[in-house]
Amino acid sequence: MAKQQLDLMEKIVSLAKRRGFIFPGSEIYGGLANSYDYGPLGVELKNNIKKLWWKMFVQERDDMVGIDGAIIMNPKVWLASGHMDNFNDPMIECKKCHTRYRETDLLGEDHWIRGVTKGTIEEHRSTTLEKRKKILIEKGCSVCGGKEFTEPKQFNLMFKTFLGPVENDENTVYLRPETAQAMFIDFPQIFETTRKKIPFGVAQIGKAFRNEITPGNFIFRTREFEQMEIEYFINAKDWKKYFEHWLDEMKRWIKAVGIDEKRVKYTEISDDERAFYSKRTVDIEFEYPFGQKELYGLAYRTDYDLTQHQKLSAKDLSYTDPVTGEKYIPHVIEPSLGVDRTVLAVLLSAYEEIKGGRTTTTESVKEQEVVLRLPKELAPIKIAVLPLSKKEELTSVAQNIASELRKDFNIEYDETQSIGKRYRRQDEIGTPYCVTVDFDTAKDQSVTVRDRDTMKQDRVKINELVNYFEDKLDC
Amino acid sequence: MAKQQLDLMEKIVSLAKRRGFIFPGSEIYGGLANSYDYGPLGVELKNNIKKLWWKMFVQERDDMVGIDGAIIMNPKVWLASGHMDNFNDPMIECKKCHTRYRETDLLGEDHWIRGVTKGTIEEHRSTTLEKRKKILIEKGCSVCGGKEFTEPKQFNLMFKTFLGPVENDENTVYLRPETAQAMFIDFPQIFETTRKKIPFGVAQIGKAFRNEITPGNFIFRTREFEQMEIEYFINAKDWKKYFEHWLDEMKRWIKAVGIDEKRVKYTEISDDERAFYSKRTVDIEFEYPFGQKELYGLAYRTDYDLTQHQKLSAKDLSYTDPVTGEKYIPHVIEPSLGVDRTVLAVLLSAYEEIKGGRTTTTESVKEQEVVLRLPKELAPIKIAVLPLSKKEELTSVAQNIASELRKDFNIEYDETQSIGKRYRRQDEIGTPYCVTVDFDTAKDQSVTVRDRDTMKQDRVKINELVNYFEDKLDC
Repeated sequence: MAKQQLDLMEKIVSLAKRRGFIFPGSEIYGGLANSYDYGPLGVELKNNIKKLWWKMFVQERDDMVGIDGAIIMNPKVWLASGHMDNFNDPMIECKKCHTRYRETDLLGEDHWIRGVTKGTIEEHRSTTLEKRKKILIEKGCSVCGGKEFTEPKQFNLMFKTFLGPVENDENTVYLRPETAQAMFIDFPQIFETTRKKIPFGVAQIGKAFRNEITPGNFIFRTREFEQMEIEYFINAKDWKKYFEHWLDEMKRWIKAVGIDEKRVKYTEISDDERAFYSKRTVDIEFEYPFGQKELYGLAYRTDYDLTQHQKLSAKDLSYTDPVTGEKYIPHVIEPSLGVDRTVLAVLLSAYEEIKGGRTTTTESVKEQEVVLRLPKELAPIKIAVLPLSKKEELTSVAQNIASELRKDFNIEYDETQSIGKRYRRQDEIGTPYCVTVDFDTAKDQSVTVRDRDTMKQDRVKINELVNYFEDKLDC
Repeated sequence: MAKQQLDLMEKIVSLAKRRGFIFPGSEIYGGLANSYDYGPLGVELKNNIKKLWWKMFVQERDDMVGIDGAIIMNPKVWLASGHMDNFNDPMIECKKCHTRYRETDLLGEDHWIRGVTKGTIEEHRSTTLEKRKKILIEKGCSVCGGKEFTEPKQFNLMFKTFLGPVENDENTVYLRPETAQAMFIDFPQIFETTRKKIPFGVAQIGKAFRNEITPGNFIFRTREFEQMEIEYFINAKDWKKYFEHWLDEMKRWIKAVGIDEKRVKYTEISDDERAFYSKRTVDIEFEYPFGQKELYGLAYRTDYDLTQHQKLSAKDLSYTDPVTGEKYIPHVIEPSLGVDRTVLAVLLSAYEEIKGGRTTTTESVKEQEVVLRLPKELAPIKIAVLPLSKKEELTSVAQNIASELRKDFNIEYDETQSIGKRYRRQDEIGTPYCVTVDFDTAKDQSVTVRDRDTMKQDRVKINELVNYFEDKLDC
């Protein structure tokens, strides 16, 4: 089972590279520590995920707006949020082979380190560190089996750089380790310009950076990654209701992007593992081939962040209810999603091998086939246009069809190899529809449309194709 | 005139902040050196610009694909590209008041510093530096008028940071100063996976970072900015044809986003100002209120970049023509566009003041009005839904209409203030259509649709609204 699972991971990585979804970054220079570039198909898949998220959670809701904040912010932001002092990873080293470990790897995701203030964290850690050390020593080093480790050393995960020509403490700034904080510090300007009333949320998509000690597992943990985060501002008394609401919304999202719900686990974080200010946190985990690990998070963060920023900035970050006149610091529910982890979970869920191949009237293939059953909305290529042969009478018609469809859809035109091989290729990259121009096309002004999932073939008039696909692809 | 121009800039900055297009970054902490956050309307405008660019130059063309590469790349990339050694800005200081200057500010944009290799640049600079110094001394310090300056000091504009816990040279990496290089180093993987033939291009949108000495002029020059770049790979013999093609495409783009063509200048860069490897460069400049400065660039970069990367990586980056068998390093035409500068030029072009106001049957306003004549495709809000009064019989109908339209369009629902003021507000943020629910709506099941530009009012049946707007907004 474990072996099969890891094989699946290798297959996904190989498919992603071979078909142009995801390339190792800086590959001609031997790469760079688990960095990745999204290729021609990958960038479309990723953009489609971001577009759908924005549509569902910004456009279609009247209680949400978006922002796009800077990656480099005033360092005081990270002082207030707790990242400057406490966004540390305890790093330990095997004394024998010098392999480095994030201690937290042993206990799952790092939901406990985010934004915890000093003092409290010491207390918090004294228990959890004890547990960790015990587990680690019992298991031994996973590389050499050694049972001796260095003492944990705190290492801040924020990337630092310098603004202006002088490299000193005064000019030190950080690459944001999460997108969330811009939504807190811009809160007064957002409220003022949009004149929204609580409950009301802000959404943001963007890059974040963490100087991870042990990045790994393909795009699961990279030092540079993309987040989709929401801060939903509420009156404290309503927190239970809105926590449930956003849990439902997360489930709706997971369904929409075709992530296999059977592989998703909702883990309530216990009191001693949860950040001290949070009253409820649910980790949404996915059964990746390398284990059950975090996919998304949902946290009720109380008024912790806004209170911290109000203290440090000395600006009033309170809200006055226009009806009741009640004045308070808004509380927040935070649904936090990784874009790259979504891409990975979507690929893993969509991947299907069909032993012995699939057979239709025009196809007969005996080897194993791969079908990527991506939701149509996420598929990088919506329609492939394929002339049955390279004869000019077919290719010229096919090229005209491709040009016409390209105005509305992402199209691939392909005239190489046998039609069976071309269907295989499109199945493997998740293209929902193939349009085949054959020798009858000239006679009946029609083409065959093949459905990726049902393998059903429709005969459709060329001049009805745009309408046909607008219907099918819901544009 | 100059005064009026600067007033215009102040008005745009003020409108952008007041209406939620663009906020000063980290404002509650006193900001951070000319950094900005895109607010609820700004993020929609910016996303619409990026979406349109991707549609025109990736989706609608069969000779283009996109990628999304990492911001932090292997440092060898910058050694090969010339940025490590030569991406410097000569920085000088007024001896009297210590104001810092980029010398290049005095001579327009920095098209000459990009990727020039050592040796050649010395020669290149010896002439241009001479010119610069002379101009500078003649003009004097713009702050105190002083005529004495320090000698120029070279300062590398790349932001550096450290990968992993140890801060040393070996672990130093850089934030990319341009998106272009990923398209060069991923060239072999892109060609292999897409099986495209030359001529063929790669497009990318993403953040880039430059540690500018003197950022300024709102979002014109910021240290963190977003680029839309294309590397179009060609056979050297065709360069003139494709240069002209991309110049035409740039013009088509400028028209599509509504940038005022009368304020756009196409400047041929002369031999002694152009990078030594480039055979032709055109700077596309815009008359901003603070002067005629770079908007976009178009450069024929020959095979310089791929040759450099082939040398340093020792990987074969050549292309073999499948028909002629000719083997060569592809040459490139590079259209380079700044997203933030596009936003600025679009806002400046769309902004119109109407003295004495506009009058229609239902409106009569005497003060000055502002209309932001954004192309419909770029408008952050497509339709505002406005009940004529706050009476429940009107608001409930209006809210239902808003919910229905929200499935397909970005909607704003607004029931505050007088109808005239609400029209003003929507004009000022560039909303193309306002739907007004009035006291006749219950009787005739119809609403009034007001056009931002023509001020014409159509009476439309509620159940025909979606079709009406699909037509008008071309979705």
